[in-house]
Amino acid sequence: MSCDFVALSNPGVQALQPYQAGKPAEELERELGIRDIVKLASNENPLGPSSAAISAVQSVLSGLTRYPDSNGYYLKQALSQRFNLAANQLTLGNGSNDLLELVARAFLREGVEAVYSEYAFIVYPLVVKACGATGVRVPARDYGHDLDAMADAVTANTRVIFIANPNNPTGTCLTSQAFKRFMARIPEQVLVVLDEAYSEYTDQADTPDGLALTATYNNLIVTRTFSKAYGLAALRVGFAVANPVVTDLLNRVRQPFNVSSVAQAAAMAALADREYLARTVSLNRQGLKQMQAGLVALEVSYIPSVANFITIDCEQDALLVYQALLEQGVIVRPLGVYAMPQHLRVTLGTETENQRFLDALKKVIA
Amino acid sequence: MSCDFVALSNPGVQALQPYQAGKPAEELERELGIRDIVKLASNENPLGPSSAAISAVQSVLSGLTRYPDSNGYYLKQALSQRFNLAANQLTLGNGSNDLLELVARAFLREGVEAVYSEYAFIVYPLVVKACGATGVRVPARDYGHDLDAMADAVTANTRVIFIANPNNPTGTCLTSQAFKRFMARIPEQVLVVLDEAYSEYTDQADTPDGLALTATYNNLIVTRTFSKAYGLAALRVGFAVANPVVTDLLNRVRQPFNVSSVAQAAAMAALADREYLARTVSLNRQGLKQMQAGLVALEVSYIPSVANFITIDCEQDALLVYQALLEQGVIVRPLGVYAMPQHLRVTLGTETENQRFLDALKKVIA
Repeated sequence: MSCDFVALSNPGVQALQPYQAGKPAEELERELGIRDIVKLASNENPLGPSSAAISAVQSVLSGLTRYPDSNGYYLKQALSQRFNLAANQLTLGNGSNDLLELVARAFLREGVEAVYSEYAFIVYPLVVKACGATGVRVPARDYGHDLDAMADAVTANTRVIFIANPNNPTGTCLTSQAFKRFMARIPEQVLVVLDEAYSEYTDQADTPDGLALTATYNNLIVTRTFSKAYGLAALRVGFAVANPVVTDLLNRVRQPFNVSSVAQAAAMAALADREYLARTVSLNRQGLKQMQAGLVALEVSYIPSVANFITIDCEQDALLVYQALLEQGVIVRPLGVYAMPQHLRVTLGTETENQRFLDALKKVIA
Repeated sequence: MSCDFVALSNPGVQALQPYQAGKPAEELERELGIRDIVKLASNENPLGPSSAAISAVQSVLSGLTRYPDSNGYYLKQALSQRFNLAANQLTLGNGSNDLLELVARAFLREGVEAVYSEYAFIVYPLVVKACGATGVRVPARDYGHDLDAMADAVTANTRVIFIANPNNPTGTCLTSQAFKRFMARIPEQVLVVLDEAYSEYTDQADTPDGLALTATYNNLIVTRTFSKAYGLAALRVGFAVANPVVTDLLNRVRQPFNVSSVAQAAAMAALADREYLARTVSLNRQGLKQMQAGLVALEVSYIPSVANFITIDCEQDALLVYQALLEQGVIVRPLGVYAMPQHLRVTLGTETENQRFLDALKKVIA
């Protein structure tokens, strides 16, 4: 064709490399003809879904022809009650990815800056770039956020700082004290996004409680997801908590029907199913111990994690290990896109799945 | 709070008035305590969902903990086969609203322009404004698109033209000849979005077949939805068809998991359920005749429609009629936001629902 459509697209989009999802198990089946695949690539909940969530979806199936409630009235009510928040502090998203993008679309544009950490969630630089803003990547400290350096990176043009806590893909976690010290250094006109996608898993004492801290900091936006501990990744639902003015701005750029009816219903049920959440967290703690012990036995080093995954150091090109694990029917996540070419991120699965991984790794590194 | 967060937000966002969804039936129940409500406000399919779609959703419920296929492999295969397209021409969206937004986010920014018609779908000006671009609203002709005037409105800064065919909220439809004449006038570097959300309903001879025309025009993007004739508004799924280069750009700005697993599964089933689609279209044609006859009998004028709704002229402040209909338990859509303060858009429902509306309208205008 004669027309260069790439040149016509927005400058940030021209350079954009889209997010690469974890390989779906069925894709590996198609490619290698392997059965009995263990997918530990996308930090999904290994328990299978809450039966209450499944029932909730079934109960709304007769209404599939109707648009979702654009305002998410009932889900917001449930979230308000559970987390002691006002409904006008809440924005619902098509997964927390949607919420991160809403922040970018509301506050970022050409000429302004957003700050994030070297090894933080890859979606931050993507949403920043897509809006034409400048991303400022601050070197990590011990694979975690260097909050002092991030505060130092703030300029008059900084609009947003993205922080993942616990951090994906490294599993590190900030202390409440460190976070408060950081917030004290950040001017109120700079919005701080605290992405708590993995917060339910951590048992670290003195972890910042983002939801409660929104009452203290007007410039704090906390994002949460139902994709991890609540086990609803397939349905796409998350929420953001911020002050009502910021919340109104996020809702202005939100697609009116961004969260499906089934996602709203399932999220309410998952929120109420405390037993499922407790079982999820308990299984994860056992899995963390099992994996750590297994890795120590194999003399494979890893980054200490508080989340539902653990990132190992292959001390060689991790893609080779990744490929060899694939051939054993185990899918994990290579981190080349995070500039961690020797690391692999491994989701904590069931005890059996974790053992499958450890056995496969043992073979591969032998 | 001391900080003016609205002033910090992007200029386009500051002036943005979010989309107002049709009133949900349950909201009316909460407010007025009315039962047996008929909702004819959101152009939803009155048949209830395809049982094949319901079964498809049920079959994927055990996988709710897993992320959706980011690439929509199977749904794209099904769409390719059904509509004779290549998979690399397809972008999946969280409803077609998502796709309209992707076009805006890929090609619109401060300093460029997008053209749309006076009474076209309200989401066009919203997505244009949110990206900071300039919207150019071209006066309608007989409540439809004035294609000559729209072509005249193209400048060196125009990047996108949005056209709804059939048009929402007026129900008008372009001819193939008129559309081709228009395309011949549009320079290739201007992208034309042909929004065919209602295309399944029209029986107008010589309607442009957008999907086939993407083979002719490199600058044509066609959007389709599963929310209307396929009966899946609750689940949020639509698709865009364009040349592979434009498709790649849209997919760069797409959220990696924008379409849920249940939406992908249900869409495939709905696509295969040709009997449901035929029944939907047939019911709609009967409904259109019933409504037209009923309105003629009531001496209420309307805009001739080829879609699944009909827009009536109340010849007075339509909000008064809207409110009086609400009190009769009938929800329709006022069009003040479209600068049509005397009109109401009425979705075609089942025969009983249409009669409920006609009876209620008779009372109200008496």
